[in-house]
Amino acid sequence: MGSKKVLNNYGSFDVVFKSGKGSVLTDINGKKYIDFLAGIAVNSLGHNFKPLIKAVSSQAKKQIHVCNYFLSDIGVKYADELLNATGFEGVFFGNSGAESNEAAIKLARKFGQLSGGAKRKTIVTLEHSFHGRTMATLTATGQDVFHPETFAPYVEGFKTIKPNDYGSLKDAFDDTTAALMMECVQGEGGVFPLDKEWAKAAADAARKAGAIVICDEVQTGMGRTGTLLASEQLGINPEVVTLAKAIAGGIPMGACLYRGKGNVFAAGDHQSTFGGNPLACRAASVVLHELLKNGFLSSVSEKGEYIQNTVKNWNLPCIEDVRGKGLMIGIQVSKNPVEVEKLCLEKGVLFSTAGKNVLRLVPPLNIGYKEIDKGLAIIKEVLEK
Amino acid sequence: MGSKKVLNNYGSFDVVFKSGKGSVLTDINGKKYIDFLAGIAVNSLGHNFKPLIKAVSSQAKKQIHVCNYFLSDIGVKYADELLNATGFEGVFFGNSGAESNEAAIKLARKFGQLSGGAKRKTIVTLEHSFHGRTMATLTATGQDVFHPETFAPYVEGFKTIKPNDYGSLKDAFDDTTAALMMECVQGEGGVFPLDKEWAKAAADAARKAGAIVICDEVQTGMGRTGTLLASEQLGINPEVVTLAKAIAGGIPMGACLYRGKGNVFAAGDHQSTFGGNPLACRAASVVLHELLKNGFLSSVSEKGEYIQNTVKNWNLPCIEDVRGKGLMIGIQVSKNPVEVEKLCLEKGVLFSTAGKNVLRLVPPLNIGYKEIDKGLAIIKEVLEK
Ligand SMILES: Cc1ncc(COP(=O)(O)O)c(C=O)c1O
Ligand SMILES: Cc1ncc(COP(=O)(O)O)c(C=O)c1O
Repeated sequence: MGSKKVLNNYGSFDVVFKSGKGSVLTDINGKKYIDFLAGIAVNSLGHNFKPLIKAVSSQAKKQIHVCNYFLSDIGVKYADELLNATGFEGVFFGNSGAESNEAAIKLARKFGQLSGGAKRKTIVTLEHSFHGRTMATLTATGQDVFHPETFAPYVEGFKTIKPNDYGSLKDAFDDTTAALMMECVQGEGGVFPLDKEWAKAAADAARKAGAIVICDEVQTGMGRTGTLLASEQLGINPEVVTLAKAIAGGIPMGACLYRGKGNVFAAGDHQSTFGGNPLACRAASVVLHELLKNGFLSSVSEKGEYIQNTVKNWNLPCIEDVRGKGLMIGIQVSKNPVEVEKLCLEKGVLFSTAGKNVLRLVPPLNIGYKEIDKGLAIIKEVLEK
Repeated sequence: MGSKKVLNNYGSFDVVFKSGKGSVLTDINGKKYIDFLAGIAVNSLGHNFKPLIKAVSSQAKKQIHVCNYFLSDIGVKYADELLNATGFEGVFFGNSGAESNEAAIKLARKFGQLSGGAKRKTIVTLEHSFHGRTMATLTATGQDVFHPETFAPYVEGFKTIKPNDYGSLKDAFDDTTAALMMECVQGEGGVFPLDKEWAKAAADAARKAGAIVICDEVQTGMGRTGTLLASEQLGINPEVVTLAKAIAGGIPMGACLYRGKGNVFAAGDHQSTFGGNPLACRAASVVLHELLKNGFLSSVSEKGEYIQNTVKNWNLPCIEDVRGKGLMIGIQVSKNPVEVEKLCLEKGVLFSTAGKNVLRLVPPLNIGYKEIDKGLAIIKEVLEK
């Protein structure tokens, strides 16, 4: 079967999807599944969301891609919308989370050189973090399992500290530090929200040493945690925020936003052929408008609390912890999480695991309570066994 | 204006495009331009190509993105089509040229370690090459101008040799070499086709030392040079070929194809959230079908020869060289190329420069002779001044 030849597919599941509508996916046999995964926090408006489809179809007819030597009407418009909504000064558009973070890494190095000379080059990241699979973002990723000898030599200039640990801040930063880079909620690492006080202390310490703060919001950004950016809730005002996943409703797109001391990129410093293409920008504009509609973001928080409370109230002994922010929720279990995932899939609900023993729920942000209840009922049934 | 805030836009030209049809673009003032650029070799079927638009619109309704833990019907189908058409065994799908090359770099390192232990890690690339803007692909790029101190430290394990130079092959490869990586026609470097005999000698020497051969076909691939892959014309049978740009008609997508000794990736070695999404795969399937239609690729060669011959027959003293393959053509001039580019743009034809003094023409592959003649007439008029 074709799957064996496509590296991207882990091949752990034999399900082949053919279509989706709202928060329900359909496989090639016609079986339906509640989607608690949203393509790993990508399809934030669900599937076949009419305004998105209309925009994509109409933009495809006008222009899918122009090169970056020139502007497109929609590229200019979307950049303004995004910067206005987020309060940043400039943006680089790429095509993935890894590309957004590669841009942020280059930006941090340029900032370091400008402000502290050749020695200010180190980027401090957190244990259990995940920043991507390109060489530099892989090196930034604070998990040893991602650093086999196979792909060595890794990139110099990275250092890892323990999150939510005050001791680790003692000698984390000095005049060789260019940036502190962190996820607001560690996603792949196991859905671990950063402690607000600690995040503030870490950002303060980094800035005191002359560094800037980068929030990797590839997974947490664009409404996922109940605010447009998750960093708003931490109150740390990052100089740089990276986005991808949900930004353009599933069309590959990434962004590296910068401001203040982080506003150091000049024309020619970085580039991407597809970056900021009008098709992705048009889709991203629809997503942004939807998120900014009255009540949308607060409904994300409410649904998230509803899910967390429901799961906690099951009082199941195999559930060790329920945590998260908005619609990014981790259920830590004492059972084999992949087994649970498989059984749930068979019964018609889709989600993934994260970290070692965590079921990760990142459904479409506009999922209805009916689907939430249906999906949770299946999870409960499986966990009770 | 928004442009100043978007890093991707170099801001050299004040033209804002709003739509395109075939090989003609329209800006926001209604002015029309012959498109000899195709978004830098991306829009190979031109703009508003009906079968592509229909496929994109219909696929967007079905599913734009599913996550890589699962398959999509169209992802499986397209992977089979691409592997059958190119003769490769496996593929990783990413979202850009840089991502395809990051995958190839990781693949080469894994191959090196498996076949020669920790010491076989070096990737040999060529002077004047361009492989991307992420940290590892930037390091691979054999142009000093791309390696300012600003972004140091660069990635270890790369070495550069002179293309089309037999002397450079003498001690280029040894038991520390994992791969030779090269463009078949150097695009950004100035449209320099590799000499066929030299490419063969280089590939032979690399393989004799135990290394594999990677062709970066991000710009040359998918019909651009008159064959599906440009490497077919060099007869070097690369173990790895990277693709992006034209692969999905403008939707961000990249691919890293591998076979034989290059078939070393295992599940989990590399990943990308958006990689291989059904929207991009559906568009890519349309592109591939079009390229494989009877007579399509030979028409690319014919148009390319027509353009080269026409320009040569102008016998203009300011033209120093006309070169290229298929519809990837460089006109080396003794005038300021950016000035020529600007004047041509004003008169209604769009192209870009490459290298130091080269006008690069990479029009849509299905451009008509009428548009070719119209565009060339403008270039002639400007060069004659
Ligand atoms: C926080 C974070 N950063 C970066 C990435 C990498 O994004 P991509 O897979 O689009 O390259 C991910 C992907 O899961 C992520 O969760
Ligand atoms: C030969 C080659 N490789 C890689 C790249 C990088 O591709 P991207 O801009 O999609 O990252 C390019 C872009 O021009 C290219 O021409």
